[in-house]
Formats: sequence, C-alpha cells, structure tokens
Amino acid sequence: YTVSSFQKSLDLAKPCKRFVLHLHDIAYDGDNAANATSAAIVNPLGLGDFSFGKFVIMDDPVTMDQNYLSKPVARVQGFFCYHGKATYDAWIAWTVVFNSTQHKGAFTIMGENPFMEPTRDLPIVGGTGDFIMTRGIATLTTDHIDGSKYFRVKLDIKLYECYH
Amino acid sequence: YTVSSFQKSLDLAKPCKRFVLHLHDIAYDGDNAANATSAAIVNPLGLGDFSFGKFVIMDDPVTMDQNYLSKPVARVQGFFCYHGKATYDAWIAWTVVFNSTQHKGAFTIMGENPFMEPTRDLPIVGGTGDFIMTRGIATLTTDHIDGSKYFRVKLDIKLYECYH
Repeated sequence: YTVSSFQKSLDLAKPCKRFVLHLHDIAYDGDNAANATSAAIVNPLGLGDFSFGKFVIMDDPVTMDQNYLSKPVARVQGFFCYHGKATYDAWIAWTVVFNSTQHKGAFTIMGENPFMEPTRDLPIVGGTGDFIMTRGIATLTTDHIDGSKYFRVKLDIKLYECYH
Repeated sequence: YTVSSFQKSLDLAKPCKRFVLHLHDIAYDGDNAANATSAAIVNPLGLGDFSFGKFVIMDDPVTMDQNYLSKPVARVQGFFCYHGKATYDAWIAWTVVFNSTQHKGAFTIMGENPFMEPTRDLPIVGGTGDFIMTRGIATLTTDHIDGSKYFRVKLDIKLYECYH
C-alpha cells in the first residue's frame, strides 16, 4: 500500500467549529456528597508539596456562561492526576458530553495540563455523534479557584476536523 | 499558511474496515486469581450507589463469536473507571491488541462509555501495525452481564481512516 506521510497545513485562525464552555468542579470534602462533582480516589503520596499522585475522577457540569447555576449544556466526564514535584501540574482525560436538543455527541480532550499557566492548549483527540471523527485544540483558562473546594475552567474549543 | 480547516465528508456507511469482536471480562473476586482477567485497584468511594471512583485494570480475551471458550483473536488491555453518581457510567481506555498470523497491531478505543445504554459509540483515536494511524468509531453493546462476576461486550469496529 502507499501511504506517504503528508505534511498537511492548517490555518489556526479558521477552525471549522469554535465555541466556549465553562466547566464547574466541586471537590468532595467528605461532607458534601450531594453537591460534589469530583472526588480523589488516590490521595497525594507526599512526594513534594504539590499533590503528586493525587488522582481525581470527575463528572462536572458545563455551562455557556460563568454562572454555576446556569442550566448545564454538557458535562465533562473523566479524570485528572497530579504529576508535578516542583509545581502543581496535572494530566487530564476529559470527555465533553452533550445530551441536549441542540447537540448530541461527545469529544475528548486529553494530555498535559500545566494549570498554573494562564492558558494551556490541549489536543482534542476524537469524537462521536455531532462531533464524529473530530479533532482540534482546547485552550483552557482557569477562571476561578476557591481554595481546594471549587474551580471553574474556561474551555475555548477549536475544532479543525469536522465531519458533521 | 493556507488551508482552512476542512469540512470533510464521511460516509458513515462505508468504513474502510469493519469487523465485530466480543470482549470477555472476569472480575477478580479474591478467590479466582487464575481465571480473573480484570481487577479493581481502587474500590468505590461511597459517593452515591453506582461505584463512583472504582478503577479497574483489565487484560481481557476477545473472540470472534460470543463463546468465551473460543480461541481469542486479540486482547483488550487498559482500564475503566466509574464516574457516575446517579447511574452506572464509566470512562474507558481500551487498546485492542492483535498478535496472530492474521493480524499484528493494535488500536485504542477511548472515552465516555454510558454502559447502561443499549449501544454506545466511542472514538478510536489511533493505531499501530496493521492498524497504523487508523481512526474510527467503536459501537459497544453489552451482550451479557453475570452480576459483578462476568460481562461480555460486543465491539462493532468501524475504521474510517485506514493506511494498511
């Protein structure tokens, strides 16, 4: 078979789809079982002071604006784990799942998320339904942090391969 | 540089490769070490009644038919973790590995698997060997569940990018 690896080019300014979402995470603290949207299944190992080894599973609501109480348009399901020894740093696998009249389908953001940086780009590696076979980039910005209880992240989604 | 993100078209009815596999999972229960093919490395946290937080590592045989005793044609290796508070729901990373005279190579299914649904589509995000650089969709159907001991899942594999 012939497969030349082809050097493709890409106009970053022209994604085939672009939208912004806000993810809300409420960490389980032992008392807030009803409201919690994520929980650590492995606690930090004590390797350094930046939660190395902490592994968190999540099922977070996503809204179009920054208001946690707005109606969720999607959920982010998956996990993140802390791997930094000298700073806070996490590896994430987040599937954004839509189940509404407007959108049905999902896509997955995955990779290294140095969340202490103002903005971070991560790959979108695949999708289904309205997002079938999609690929792209998610730019993450931490909107708000409330200690270890709550954080809100802006997801600037840019899809560069669209089939729907 | 040029090339706008391309709105490609995809004929879902014409994958470049399509085949069906059946995955068999025998959960480790403390006594069946010899036969077990998966085991929880983290047990549920008690956040809701749907195993939230349970993290299972697996190395499951895959057959062409539904018979667990048939000769495996591949194995599914990876993990899944439960993230549902209101229902059973899992995030999965499953690499299907072939090591036979017919096929040598692997591809990875990854993402959100609401396994209580009759069928679920998940992205196939990449592959190697006979499946080099492949991408596609896996449609999962739960064939059979035997309590928490055994489950069989049908994997309807549709590859839309083939290079082999």
